[in-house]
Amino acid sequence: KLARGGADVHFLMRRDLDAVREKGLQIRSPEGGFELTKVQAHGTTESMGTVDVVIVALKATDNQALLDLLLPLIREETMILTLQNGLGNEAWIARHFGSERMLGGLCFVCLNRTAPGLVEHFGEGTIMLGEYLRPPAARTRALAAEFQRCGIKVRLAEDLETARWHKLVWNVPFNGLAIVAGGVDVSVILGNESLALLARELMREVIGIAHQLGHRLPETFVEDQMKATGPMGPYKPSSLLDYLEGRPVEVEAIWGEAYRQGLSVNADVAHLETVYHLLKALCV
Amino acid sequence: KLARGGADVHFLMRRDLDAVREKGLQIRSPEGGFELTKVQAHGTTESMGTVDVVIVALKATDNQALLDLLLPLIREETMILTLQNGLGNEAWIARHFGSERMLGGLCFVCLNRTAPGLVEHFGEGTIMLGEYLRPPAARTRALAAEFQRCGIKVRLAEDLETARWHKLVWNVPFNGLAIVAGGVDVSVILGNESLALLARELMREVIGIAHQLGHRLPETFVEDQMKATGPMGPYKPSSLLDYLEGRPVEVEAIWGEAYRQGLSVNADVAHLETVYHLLKALCV
Repeated sequence: KLARGGADVHFLMRRDLDAVREKGLQIRSPEGGFELTKVQAHGTTESMGTVDVVIVALKATDNQALLDLLLPLIREETMILTLQNGLGNEAWIARHFGSERMLGGLCFVCLNRTAPGLVEHFGEGTIMLGEYLRPPAARTRALAAEFQRCGIKVRLAEDLETARWHKLVWNVPFNGLAIVAGGVDVSVILGNESLALLARELMREVIGIAHQLGHRLPETFVEDQMKATGPMGPYKPSSLLDYLEGRPVEVEAIWGEAYRQGLSVNADVAHLETVYHLLKALCV
Repeated sequence: KLARGGADVHFLMRRDLDAVREKGLQIRSPEGGFELTKVQAHGTTESMGTVDVVIVALKATDNQALLDLLLPLIREETMILTLQNGLGNEAWIARHFGSERMLGGLCFVCLNRTAPGLVEHFGEGTIMLGEYLRPPAARTRALAAEFQRCGIKVRLAEDLETARWHKLVWNVPFNGLAIVAGGVDVSVILGNESLALLARELMREVIGIAHQLGHRLPETFVEDQMKATGPMGPYKPSSLLDYLEGRPVEVEAIWGEAYRQGLSVNADVAHLETVYHLLKALCV
């Protein structure tokens, strides 16, 4: 949407480079799809030069690669915005490139890359944007305004870390159970008495950990999340697609970090522990 | 072994009837296999007449069928010995046929029926024999002596219910994780750090429930079980074979009963709850 809106976007492509160079990027969406025929697609970041904002959308399992990938992109005022899942990504990038340039965002969106150069959007689409360890600043609002100008719904996170816990309350049960229950979509989890019970137990544990860490989440949060999941239909979380296609799953960024932080504050983590360790055994 | 030893054994065969009528029963074993060429195999219990002892080896998921199956076998002094897995089987049979005739046994044995008429024995082989809600009596000892005469190792259970909890400490983690970890044998569970951790957590929970219910199990029990599992090698628990072959799994008799009894005494059951509900979602 940024590229469609005229922003000067350069894409680092890995798997999809040839397909995108040949025929561009195609987006299918119930809100109306679109095509980008001219995509500034790169196979490395060296050819991009330095940029205003780096948007990190790499799987967290590949974070080590960021050390080389980000270096050519950064000048003094460059911001780094990670839209990755899970916990610990801002801290890791900030440790290597400085915390003052660090922003994070959470994507509340159902989409899968289903073929080279093809993105399928199933619903939702808000980005929750925040500064790393700071409240939103002028640059955060400017960035949000640019996103909004291009048709992207944005909300500002007063506390990015709280927002990350907020999102984990959904990711931990739904991405996790989708895999350990044998490869099921979110509608199966909602519709199966046993899996719905486990989803609620996992949410309660994640909320409990977040509370112990000082993050406030609403009391009605468990049922809010169950209700919000219904309209997603038979959506397969991206972790499940990664698992089914034999790609690395973000086990540590999502379940591992939540589990370890839970242990560190003596929170109840038994359901999370079970799912985390099953995922470790099941996933690459 | 009873039939080989000359006892008058009648077998109710279901899946294997034709194969066994044609070529008998074959037992493969590291301790020396053997064949029974003449097997008194029946397709129904009506043709057997009444008996001294009924040995129940049906899957607990088929208990309803016992109502019809047992009726033709029973006269006043007939004993019913269930060798089924899990909890609740003696109580269920006793409710319908009387508790005074009820005995139970636990089979500590690794064996699978791998083809019609073929039983493969991988190791172990002790039966722990007891009376339902009573200590062993003269008839228990007589039955044990007959088993031993035929080469079957037998131990008497002073308290059959405690012995059942004893066995659940193994069955809950190993049969359960074998399925929910994607179809792995017990050597994988022992060798995988995450699965070994979960096996220990599940054992601790089952021991905790048993304690709360008044059953005493040794303090060293968790590590004893881990050590005893090593020599089993790449053994696939029978629940896993049932699962892989699309047959019903004894989810309620093993995990469901343990879980509900745990809830009834307010024991920690979170790991068990997770595995139980995943099994309910995964299994027929």
